[in-house]
Amino acid sequence: MLYKKPKVKRQEKVMKNLVLIRHGESEWNLANRFTGWTDVDLSEKGVKEAKNGGIQLKKDGFDFDICYTSYLKRAIHTLNNVLFEMDREWLPVVKSWKLNERHYGALQGLNKSETSQKYGEDQVKIWRRSFDIQPPALEENDDRNPALQEQYRGEDRSVLPLTESLKDTIARVIPYYENVILPEILKGRRVLIAAHGNSLRALIMYLDGLSEKEIIEVNVPTGIPLVYTLTDDGKAQGKRYLGNQEEIEAKMKAVAAQGKAK
Amino acid sequence: MLYKKPKVKRQEKVMKNLVLIRHGESEWNLANRFTGWTDVDLSEKGVKEAKNGGIQLKKDGFDFDICYTSYLKRAIHTLNNVLFEMDREWLPVVKSWKLNERHYGALQGLNKSETSQKYGEDQVKIWRRSFDIQPPALEENDDRNPALQEQYRGEDRSVLPLTESLKDTIARVIPYYENVILPEILKGRRVLIAAHGNSLRALIMYLDGLSEKEIIEVNVPTGIPLVYTLTDDGKAQGKRYLGNQEEIEAKMKAVAAQGKAK
Repeated sequence: MLYKKPKVKRQEKVMKNLVLIRHGESEWNLANRFTGWTDVDLSEKGVKEAKNGGIQLKKDGFDFDICYTSYLKRAIHTLNNVLFEMDREWLPVVKSWKLNERHYGALQGLNKSETSQKYGEDQVKIWRRSFDIQPPALEENDDRNPALQEQYRGEDRSVLPLTESLKDTIARVIPYYENVILPEILKGRRVLIAAHGNSLRALIMYLDGLSEKEIIEVNVPTGIPLVYTLTDDGKAQGKRYLGNQEEIEAKMKAVAAQGKAK
Repeated sequence: MLYKKPKVKRQEKVMKNLVLIRHGESEWNLANRFTGWTDVDLSEKGVKEAKNGGIQLKKDGFDFDICYTSYLKRAIHTLNNVLFEMDREWLPVVKSWKLNERHYGALQGLNKSETSQKYGEDQVKIWRRSFDIQPPALEENDDRNPALQEQYRGEDRSVLPLTESLKDTIARVIPYYENVILPEILKGRRVLIAAHGNSLRALIMYLDGLSEKEIIEVNVPTGIPLVYTLTDDGKAQGKRYLGNQEEIEAKMKAVAAQGKAK
């Protein structure tokens, strides 16, 4: 009997794109301060970075069905500027504090170089770059306590942080991704997420299956669209940053150097 | 037997606020063109008007839980600027084309004075100010047909207009208000709607119970928050514009004069 090719039709995995973008430079990146949940605006350069991200996405033919961002204006304004350049401001935008930057506790507002000089560069690097060590927590009665801020008035006080390690940030970002964003992707909707260095690290760790050690070495450049190719069931198959690759390399190095005392 | 006061506790009607704001001056208001669904941006003055609206709302102690706007950037940017000034950009914003300006059909893009000269001031006044007369419709293959535009790609083509009378606009705005916005108000959520002259007229006609003749005489000034006081079951009890009343009067007169040939 001759070998007969099975008649099963090979199912091509349909690829989906998921695009992440880190907000452009903020007024406090510029001042080299620990920002965390402090709601500072983009710098002029940051607005430009966001616009460039939008121009690049448009140039490369990207389009979206739904967008997600944090409660912080540097991410919201980044998204607004990206969508303006793409002529897509009418797209639905969902905001959640679950996509906020890592909460930096009592370090929020301190200049990074001063903090390095005070606590030593190694301690600062531990706080910035360790996986599970929290910076000193805010006092309950501190104005910076999210439970005392209007943004978070709708939330159960017990889930709002006074400080976070990267691990803590991941522990709120990933369930949000799995429960809210991923189901939209699986429905076939094209998703754009505008967020922060550490909330995006959480997603990158999850999508790339990185170890705790590996994710700490990942530096997300500002304003550069990061495109994930996902299989039809939401597994990452590859990723790439859009735009000039040399500029992107330089940006990553600049982020990595931020913790060093000046 | 002595009369005994019934023990039924008198239920105080809880008052709710609903705030409407018409977008600030657009680039085409400035050029005195029929805009309709053309997606033109705010003029510099329009941005300022929007910001002033936000400053006024903040000064008067207003706050919101959810905001609604159209698919058109002059309304979206008005809302963004209001929320920026109120420090409320993290609020949820729902966009719907049901809140778009009245569709002006084939008049879209024409200068109002030229149109007056061509068709006569009376005909233009009929198109602008009649209740149920539609301007000439767009051809199906016209670039301006919403069914051919990205914004409306998710919509059933058969519900998208090629022209609208004020009556047609009302026929899409009111069901959206009743089915989507009003339930939120009845749940106790404080609502802000940033929209357009005619989509807001639809709401004003509905809330104030105006006749077809009366609504045509209503001119909504740009960038001025219009506060409705509603009973607990959503009936309008009163309304007022926030800010300097003389300036508001002058603005209303300016809107009314727009259709006159120059």
